[in-house]
Amino acid sequence: MSKEGQRQKLVITRKAKSRSWLYEEGQRQKLVMKWRTVHKTFNTERRRELVRITEDVQDAVDDAGVREGMVLVSAMHITAGVWVNDDEPGIHEDALEWLDKLAPPSWKEPVNDVARELLPDGGDYRHHRGGEDNGDAHLKNLLVHHQVVLPITEGRLDLGPWQQVFYCEFDGRRPKRLVIKVMGE
Amino acid sequence: MSKEGQRQKLVITRKAKSRSWLYEEGQRQKLVMKWRTVHKTFNTERRRELVRITEDVQDAVDDAGVREGMVLVSAMHITAGVWVNDDEPGIHEDALEWLDKLAPPSWKEPVNDVARELLPDGGDYRHHRGGEDNGDAHLKNLLVHHQVVLPITEGRLDLGPWQQVFYCEFDGRRPKRLVIKVMGE
Amino acid sequence: MSKEGQRQKLVITRKAKSRSWLYEEGQRQKLVMKWRTVHKTFNTERRRELVRITEDVQDAVDDAGVREGMVLVSAMHITAGVWVNDDEPGIHEDALEWLDKLAPPSWKEPVNDVARELLPDGGDYRHHRGGEDNGDAHLKNLLVHHQVVLPITEGRLDLGPWQQVFYCEFDGRRPKRLVIKVMGE
Repeated sequence: MSKEGQRQKLVITRKAKSRSWLYEEGQRQKLVMKWRTVHKTFNTERRRELVRITEDVQDAVDDAGVREGMVLVSAMHITAGVWVNDDEPGIHEDALEWLDKLAPPSWKEPVNDVARELLPDGGDYRHHRGGEDNGDAHLKNLLVHHQVVLPITEGRLDLGPWQQVFYCEFDGRRPKRLVIKVMGE
Repeated sequence: MSKEGQRQKLVITRKAKSRSWLYEEGQRQKLVMKWRTVHKTFNTERRRELVRITEDVQDAVDDAGVREGMVLVSAMHITAGVWVNDDEPGIHEDALEWLDKLAPPSWKEPVNDVARELLPDGGDYRHHRGGEDNGDAHLKNLLVHHQVVLPITEGRLDLGPWQQVFYCEFDGRRPKRLVIKVMGE
Repeated sequence: MSKEGQRQKLVITRKAKSRSWLYEEGQRQKLVMKWRTVHKTFNTERRRELVRITEDVQDAVDDAGVREGMVLVSAMHITAGVWVNDDEPGIHEDALEWLDKLAPPSWKEPVNDVARELLPDGGDYRHHRGGEDNGDAHLKNLLVHHQVVLPITEGRLDLGPWQQVFYCEFDGRRPKRLVIKVMGE
């Protein structure tokens, strides 16, 4: 046996020895919790942009080798979000237009009376006193949230037929991070 | 000893052998992570409906035999939600009326000026170009979210006195699925 | 050796014996899942108040001794929320003013037409028929949510530079509880 072969064998033996097994309902299950953390950076061309990341999340699950578990997908910024919805361009445009009414930016004219009245009473965000112009993106983050937790069953994201995961940029054109954290067995 | 008895004994022995134990702070703890996945299907009579599912979630926890853990409750559709709130008919009616203003349907007259202005600028959802009429349900899903994660402590959902879990249907009258994923020890 | 010393040694030995180890990719990993549950009570002076709790959550993670995991932070009331956003007084004021338009209280005059139209059609919440006056706080809870799940990497909350965790009180001046649940290895 080559040295490499011996080393391989040794590793396998140690792995085999180090694992615990649960016999329950006739099934042998490994008791090995696995964790995998992936940080991704986005730098969108436009200020607002929806980026489909379902495949990136599934890749992280595959790399972790998790069959049964959960995965947390969380924006690391307070002016971006993560949501699960349809990958249909019409609903994306609808949603972004609607969010500009509910949480209106002050760097452009409010689109209608509702948007005007939902702006801060003085007409501009207090947050902008420090030189920022992204107050609306903070409020959008609060509305649509910055994270989702997805179930993993038999190694796959346990999603419905139309559920896709999106990174939702509300103040882009600069590098911003997202964390994907897989845990399971 | 009967054959059945022998098989039972064997199983128990193997279970006992396969478990690891942690001695910490004088307490013996099992190191067995358990996972349980339950898919439920709803087919509500009405287009919008709130269905209390606290008991279904607790049942899944009981069946999993988890004493310490978390449970993810997640709608598998993009036109439904899951929330934790009061089981009080008044607040349910209040919430559904309010959601019809914030995320107005286009299949009925907007209830007031705010609802009219929160509809898409052209008066109807771009999403409806494909023949759908549930654009409002997509936006409601984004507002109230499609999932919650609940803590499990000593075998019980660790909820406050008024917290109840609801499946929130915004586009019903057809079979739609929900996933309950329990994990813990 | 002193009796105390013997007891210490015994504990350490038993801990060492009770742990399982995984040899994978040349790394020795402990297979010990840890859980820690902390209940906190808030009694805010004002009806609405944002309380920064990032440090409390990190303390719970430290006490649990978790290096790799997740932590659930969840309000146990249906009139409070938990969010992750900037610790900047301007954005806090902006957000609370905005929430009073989107989910208006009926115990004070609506601040403008949008707030007036987003009140229930009869002018007051059905929920108040039972003597309550916090219907708006229920809707705020639905909008901003009552919980977040945070990733733990190398023993630290894996947050972006501006992400802080807040308990968001919408109906305070009485004791209200929050649960922090840490899990991981």
